[in-house]
Amino acid sequence: MESIKNRRTIRKYTQEDVPAELLNELLEEAFRASTMGNMQLYSVVVTRDAKMKERLAPAHFNQPMVTSAPVVLTFCADFNRFSKWCEQRKAEPGYNNFISFLNAATDALLVTQNFCTLAEEKGLGICYLGTTIYNPDQIIDLLKLPKLVVPVATITVGYPDECPAQPDRLPIRGIIHEEQYHDYTPAEIDDIYAYKESLPENKHFVEINHTETLAQIFTDIRYKKSDNEYMSEGLKKVLKRQGFDD
Amino acid sequence: MESIKNRRTIRKYTQEDVPAELLNELLEEAFRASTMGNMQLYSVVVTRDAKMKERLAPAHFNQPMVTSAPVVLTFCADFNRFSKWCEQRKAEPGYNNFISFLNAATDALLVTQNFCTLAEEKGLGICYLGTTIYNPDQIIDLLKLPKLVVPVATITVGYPDECPAQPDRLPIRGIIHEEQYHDYTPAEIDDIYAYKESLPENKHFVEINHTETLAQIFTDIRYKKSDNEYMSEGLKKVLKRQGFDD
Repeated sequence: MESIKNRRTIRKYTQEDVPAELLNELLEEAFRASTMGNMQLYSVVVTRDAKMKERLAPAHFNQPMVTSAPVVLTFCADFNRFSKWCEQRKAEPGYNNFISFLNAATDALLVTQNFCTLAEEKGLGICYLGTTIYNPDQIIDLLKLPKLVVPVATITVGYPDECPAQPDRLPIRGIIHEEQYHDYTPAEIDDIYAYKESLPENKHFVEINHTETLAQIFTDIRYKKSDNEYMSEGLKKVLKRQGFDD
Repeated sequence: MESIKNRRTIRKYTQEDVPAELLNELLEEAFRASTMGNMQLYSVVVTRDAKMKERLAPAHFNQPMVTSAPVVLTFCADFNRFSKWCEQRKAEPGYNNFISFLNAATDALLVTQNFCTLAEEKGLGICYLGTTIYNPDQIIDLLKLPKLVVPVATITVGYPDECPAQPDRLPIRGIIHEEQYHDYTPAEIDDIYAYKESLPENKHFVEINHTETLAQIFTDIRYKKSDNEYMSEGLKKVLKRQGFDD
């Protein structure tokens, strides 16, 4: 599929709005993704209001796409709706636990990717914000998410106003394993990362960050152990707060 | 997209094999999905060997697709490769924690859905096995997954030998929320689930299961609280075993 093969994340959007009808059509198609036991354990919150975007932005470290995109979508793992249905039907729901969170998160993420594919196929550009699970508490408050609902992905959507270079990917021999996982030798690691490390933009990145290696930009600047530990604790607290801790 | 709009899970496959070249091409395209910091935190284990399928089957409650499909794919959250690279580049990886597991699982699930879309677009049929996170321990042993690698999704793939009816979906008004989450009133729950409950196959399902309501099939038979609690504990142990517990 050309739209997948040629895709790139879009962070700048034109002023053109995304019609509600188109958005709903894309979401409805996206909901065709596989879902556990056909329970559809997800909800999507649509943000179009400028003030709501401004209030959401800090949860996403003020990345400018949040306020500049015509639409922001927050995909949530949702066992609230299903559990409410059970309770109204003399059935006792038992989904306030960790596996149920992961089942619902899985459902939500499959739908998220399906939506992105469909949006791009229609000429829209999207940006996936990984920040959603870094500050879920703020998002829960703003979007008024009840118990058994946790945000797992945020997508900004609009018509592209840029066409950035396509980022590199690792060679597939570094990702696909035949029959069993063959753990990497040092030589294989060198081979798999050689192209990435050879790219001028990555060499430049190392230079301006004053690190010795590209990997150090990840471990010492972008995705630090201390931040990960802090956010792990935060996420565990959020699962508890949202009732997925039984 | 017609292939998404008309999709259905395929559980019966023809004898026709899926060529390795096609499979690799589809996976390579799937790897174009958004990935956190372009780290590509996933691996895919390809199972074609009949004996390996037989050994994998029990982990998936012996669902027949595992042994009858020409190809079984296990998508894994993988921070092993990236961490090994860091260690070889004088960088100290800090990804042995819960948020890193969820970041890698997210990367892996986006790629999984992308693969499914691409496979279906090429006329293949897929079945998503939610059982992967129910018995991850067995899968880890069989596929020899090292620390910082956890299986999160399994897909059986082959050419369709059936065309089942398309399952129902909830009306989108039950899933999409404007600006903020509007929690469901009892009347809204009745409305959202009315169509599902009205379907003859679901009424039949209630009859043969001797339950009073459709919801009770989920809570009392298919996805029971006690099973969920048991699997939650198992999954937590697996995260610890695989080193995501710091």
